[in-house]
This record gives sequence, C-alpha cells and structure tokens, in this order.
Amino acid sequence: MTMQHQGAFAPFSSAMPSSLDAFIASHTFDRPTVVLDTSRVRAQYHRLKAGLGRAHIHYAVKANPEPKVIAALVAEGSGFDAASRGEIELCLAQGAHPSLISFGNTVKRASDIAYAHSVGVRLFAADSAAELQKIADHAPHAQVYIRLLVDVSEADWPLSRKFGCDGPMALELLTFARVLGLEPVGLSFHVGSQTRRAEMWAAPLEAISKTWHAAQAQGHNLSLLNIGGGFPAFYGEAIEAPTAYAANVMAQIDTLFETPPRVMAEPGRGLVAESGVIVAEVLLVSQKSAQDTARWVYLDIGRFSGLAETEGEAIRYQLETAKDGGALGPCILAGPSCDSADVMYEKRPVMLPLNLVAGDRVLIRNTGAYTTTYSSVGFNGFPPLAVCVI
Amino acid sequence: MTMQHQGAFAPFSSAMPSSLDAFIASHTFDRPTVVLDTSRVRAQYHRLKAGLGRAHIHYAVKANPEPKVIAALVAEGSGFDAASRGEIELCLAQGAHPSLISFGNTVKRASDIAYAHSVGVRLFAADSAAELQKIADHAPHAQVYIRLLVDVSEADWPLSRKFGCDGPMALELLTFARVLGLEPVGLSFHVGSQTRRAEMWAAPLEAISKTWHAAQAQGHNLSLLNIGGGFPAFYGEAIEAPTAYAANVMAQIDTLFETPPRVMAEPGRGLVAESGVIVAEVLLVSQKSAQDTARWVYLDIGRFSGLAETEGEAIRYQLETAKDGGALGPCILAGPSCDSADVMYEKRPVMLPLNLVAGDRVLIRNTGAYTTTYSSVGFNGFPPLAVCVI
Repeated sequence: MTMQHQGAFAPFSSAMPSSLDAFIASHTFDRPTVVLDTSRVRAQYHRLKAGLGRAHIHYAVKANPEPKVIAALVAEGSGFDAASRGEIELCLAQGAHPSLISFGNTVKRASDIAYAHSVGVRLFAADSAAELQKIADHAPHAQVYIRLLVDVSEADWPLSRKFGCDGPMALELLTFARVLGLEPVGLSFHVGSQTRRAEMWAAPLEAISKTWHAAQAQGHNLSLLNIGGGFPAFYGEAIEAPTAYAANVMAQIDTLFETPPRVMAEPGRGLVAESGVIVAEVLLVSQKSAQDTARWVYLDIGRFSGLAETEGEAIRYQLETAKDGGALGPCILAGPSCDSADVMYEKRPVMLPLNLVAGDRVLIRNTGAYTTTYSSVGFNGFPPLAVCVI
Repeated sequence: MTMQHQGAFAPFSSAMPSSLDAFIASHTFDRPTVVLDTSRVRAQYHRLKAGLGRAHIHYAVKANPEPKVIAALVAEGSGFDAASRGEIELCLAQGAHPSLISFGNTVKRASDIAYAHSVGVRLFAADSAAELQKIADHAPHAQVYIRLLVDVSEADWPLSRKFGCDGPMALELLTFARVLGLEPVGLSFHVGSQTRRAEMWAAPLEAISKTWHAAQAQGHNLSLLNIGGGFPAFYGEAIEAPTAYAANVMAQIDTLFETPPRVMAEPGRGLVAESGVIVAEVLLVSQKSAQDTARWVYLDIGRFSGLAETEGEAIRYQLETAKDGGALGPCILAGPSCDSADVMYEKRPVMLPLNLVAGDRVLIRNTGAYTTTYSSVGFNGFPPLAVCVI
C-alpha cells in the first residue's frame, strides 16, 4: 500500500524536528504525559475547513476536552458537539457562543437538557420518541435533528447499533417532533470512527439521502445535514490528506442532494489526534520462559491510564524509541497495572528494539484524541494521564 | 444448577432490608453512586478468615482503595497487597504497618521500589530477572517471591499470560535472587479472577507444588506460598459460601505440601464486592426500528464510568428496579456516553420490566469491587463514579 499521508507532522520525513518534538526532547516527565500542541490543532482545523468549504465544523469535544484546545478552536470560529452538561459548561467557559454548541448525545439526562436550554443551546440530537419528549419538556421549541443508523462496516472501528434509528422510524420521529412543538431541522449519522478513505462515505450518504428525500416529499422542509465525525488520524495505515478527504465528502453530498443542505461536520479524532504525543517509559522487558520467542514489554501507561482505544487491538499506535534504527524483535506490549486485561498488543505483537530496557523513553505518536479522558481516576493507585499543553 | 450461595446479604431472601438497602431506599443521589457498607467488609473478612485458618489475608487494594475500607481492614488485622506506590501510601495513611504490606505487582517502577524500601516494605513479587535486578538495586536484601504462570482456563475471567513465568524459569530466578543478595522466600500464583468453585484450584495447586518441591530439592528452603486471589463474588451464578470455599483450598494445600508452608491469600473481589451497591438511573428506553424485539435501555453509568468489568460481557451484574415482579422483556443495556463501545450487555440481553422508563432507579448489586477506580476521570464530560460509605 502506498503511503499517502503520514499525519501532518510525521517526524520521520522532517529534516528539522517540530516544536512539539523539540519540546519533548528537552524535557523530562516524571509520569506518563500527553504533550499537546495547540498550533497543530489550529493548523488541522484549517486543513479540514479548506476541504469542507461551506460546512460548519462542530468539534467533538469528547475527543479531547483540554480547555486550551477548546479555547484555540473558539478563536478559529469552530462550533462544538457536546455530549453532556459538563462539556457544554466547558465550551461556554472557554468563550464559545451557545448558538455554536449542539447537544449531540442522543441519550441525555432530563436535567441536562433543561440546563442546556437555560444557557441558550438550541440544537439537540434524538433518535427516539422518548428522547424527543424529554427535549420538548425541558427545551420547548428547540431545533432537533434525528440520528439515523447506517451500515458502517468499512470503518476501522465501526460503531455499533447503539445510536440512531432506521429510516421509517426517523420519518415518524420528524412528525412526532412537530407534534411536540419542536422544530425538526434535519438528519444526522456517523460513518464510523477512523473511516480511512472518503469513498467509504458513499454508501452511508446514499442511504441517508433516501430518507432525506422521503422526508422532503412528506413536507418536512429539512435544512440541516449533520455528517458527524469519522475523519481519520494517522496510526500507521495510509489515510487520505484531510483537505482532499473533506472536499471529496462534500462533493458526494452536492451530488446526492438536489438543494444543497446546510452541513455540519463533527470531527474529533481527525482534528486533534495528530496534535498529541504521549511520553511513556519502559518499566520492564521480560520473558515467560526460556522458549519464548516474543518479549513482554511493560510500559508505565496502559489500557486503564490513557490507551483505552487499544481494546481489541483496534487502534495501533506508532511507537518511537531512542534506539530505533537497530535490530528489532517482536514484543507483546502491556500496561503497568496488575490487571491481566491491561495488555495493548498481543495477537499482533509490535516490533521494538532488541536492546530496549527498563527506563527507556517511548513516544506514542498521534495520541491527542481519546486518551486523556478515558484514563481512570486511579486504577491500581496510578494517577491519571498527565497533560502538558505547548 | 442449585443456588448454593447468593451472596452474604442477598436481599431476595431477607425478611428485613439490610442497613445498606435501608440507607439507599431513604436517600436520593444526583449522579451514579456506589454505596459501600464497611460492616459487610468486616463480616466477609471474618468469613474468609474462618476458612483460611492459619493463612494470612493480604487484601488486594486495587479491588477497592476507598480509605474507609482500608481502615476497616487495618482494624481487623488484615495485611495488604499493593500494586503501586500510591496504594502503599494509602495503606500507611490508614494505619497499616509496613510489615503487613507486600508489593505484589511484578512490574514496578524503580523509584517506587526505592520508596517502598524506604518506608519499610520488605516483601516484593517478581517474575523476571530484570525485576529482581531492580529490587536488588533499590531494596537490597528484600524478601522476594516468584510468581508462576498457571493454566487457569476454569475461571470465569482467566488471567492472561501477562504475569508469571514457567517452572524452570522460576527455579532459575530463585537462584538468581540469592546471587543478587535478595532473600527468595517463596512462590505465588493466581488461579484467575472469579474462580467459582474451590475444586478449580486443584490443578493449579498441583502444578505449583511440583515447582515448590523442585525448589526445595535444590535447597531453596522456601517458606511462603502466596495463593493470590480468585475468591469469587455472587453475580448471579452459584458460588460456594466463603468459609467452606476457603477451608477447601487450605485442605488441598495441606495435602499437597508435606511441610505446611506459611500461606498468604490476596482476596479482593471476594472480600469487598458484596459490600457495595451502585445506585443508577435509566436515562432512556428506546427501539431502533418498529421491528426490534429488544429494547435499548441506557443508564447513567457505563463501561467508562464504573462498569469496566462488563467488557466482553464478562461480569454480569444483577440489576434491581422498583418495578421488578411484573412482566419482563429483553433489553440491551448501554451506558450514557457517545461511545459506541459503551454497551454493557448486548449479546446476552438482560430481562427488565416492560414498564421501565427514563428516571427509574436501578440498583446494581455486588459492585463493591473493581468499579470506582476503573472509572474514567471525565469521559464525555461525565464525572467519575461517586462513592458513599456507610
């Protein structure tokens, strides 16, 4: 496979180290730390925006709720997709206007809906009659969009059936929303996390457009298409460059929808993952028996302290050590806790230097998304992943 | 299957509600909360101790590091199995004597070993030459035990190969420990979490005894057998009562070891799980299409806020609602986050009342172990699982 894109700041091809790499090289960290570079977040925002054109970006806050990341995106004019009252409060505290915040979780606590309404949030997601009823009760006259289930089998991490409803139910919910005094403005969907190529959007977009057109035929006068997230980050497998990828998705939308709708996009991973590097340390290199061919390498970070997305070996992070370039051997990579499930890569071992030893630093690339907040409060007595913003 | 044991305080069979149930019934909680009853912890300690006899209990702190739980066990004379510097500090702060704390993680940060040594911890686990070297460097002359790999396929949650080494390597490590000036005192193993019947210990104990006898034949003069954890809690499937279970394990040890060794046991789950109840709330009940036979029930707690052990649907917690007793239907149970992996039970749906609606309280039984500290710091903007100790 040809490497089309190695991430915006792939260090391998740089003659000069990036400011992020230079910062890490010149600092020590006494525990696992993700170092975030907000200039990378801003640069990636502009790359995505260049491709998305008229679409408005609503950053998926859950990917990384670091206040300085939010503040940087507020300054760029980004909107926000919030999953909870806590995320809405965070965005407001960083200066986001409530009109630029959508409450995108289809499962909301009633009191959180009331809170959102009280601070001026006007756009809510739903995929069920019960949720619409809650919204009508606690945020009367709000705008709502209905989330659709789509077949997302091509994504690296397909989303389950947890969110969304089928097309016929969506049509019923649009009508029900109107009965409740809400303003049903559109539809949303999610192609699946880490959808690596823009062409993978074709089938989901085609399916959504059918429900969209059926709704219009029923007189719903929809205006908003929320295309969700799914924009990929570089984890070692080729992905398209962000601007071309986003432009391709928008071109598909323009083909499928006669009257181009207002478009919202909710990148999370694709916006912030490549702005972060975790600095970790090897705690132990060992073997289980004299016959073992693979070594066990234990880091000071694991599935319960920041690397939750290695569950099922789904996301394969790129590792870097100061000893790269010499001879490599297969390693099972595990975390520091006494939990036997705290193993990152075992079915597909990783190749690491043969001379790796306890105390060696390991950089884990492109870990700016879905690391910090997955971290446990203190499993096994280890503190949560530390954050350092440059 | 005959129900042999429903947990020490199974509410189903009680004429009078327990003090824990009475407390929960008379209080409201504004977010998911685990309510812990330390009197249950103390009672379970005595049940286990009654069966374990001469063996000394070292509570596996990672199961629940709530300070009041630690303090209650200190008062009972318990020892502690610590996974990290943080857990050692916690135990000392609650009054534990350092001689009653073992540093049981086979993967330790060098500086944490030095810390443990400095505060008087004298007993350390290892399963590799590199770890022994670290211990010798930072805790000279310490006592060490070598952890063995065992075949644990009968446990509900078999531990992986992450911890332990094979028998031949263990013998080499005992010799190497002596070369390093350490005092190799024994062997440890783990039968696997939630080993429901005492007879499942037979094969692992038999395997351990072979290595033990080989070590004695080589002149190692071992004195300590650390039998680890694995003591079960009630999650709906029959388990043996704790005293009989522990006594059975000890009887097996007495048969296999000619000179009865000093025995350490490290119950975690089996000691504290049944002392806690999570009070949660239904956020939404919905269906994905008119054809769906199962409902989706979304709680305000999920895999990333306390129910991590539902991964792979491994631990099946018992749920209780105020509407129990009426008609039931199959439900997929999911958490509140926008994460599609945040689904607790889908392959094997749970039966819940047909009239369950948003706002209803759900009690999740026997959740005193491995819930609080697995909780994420703030995934999706939700606060960590709250703790209330009575």
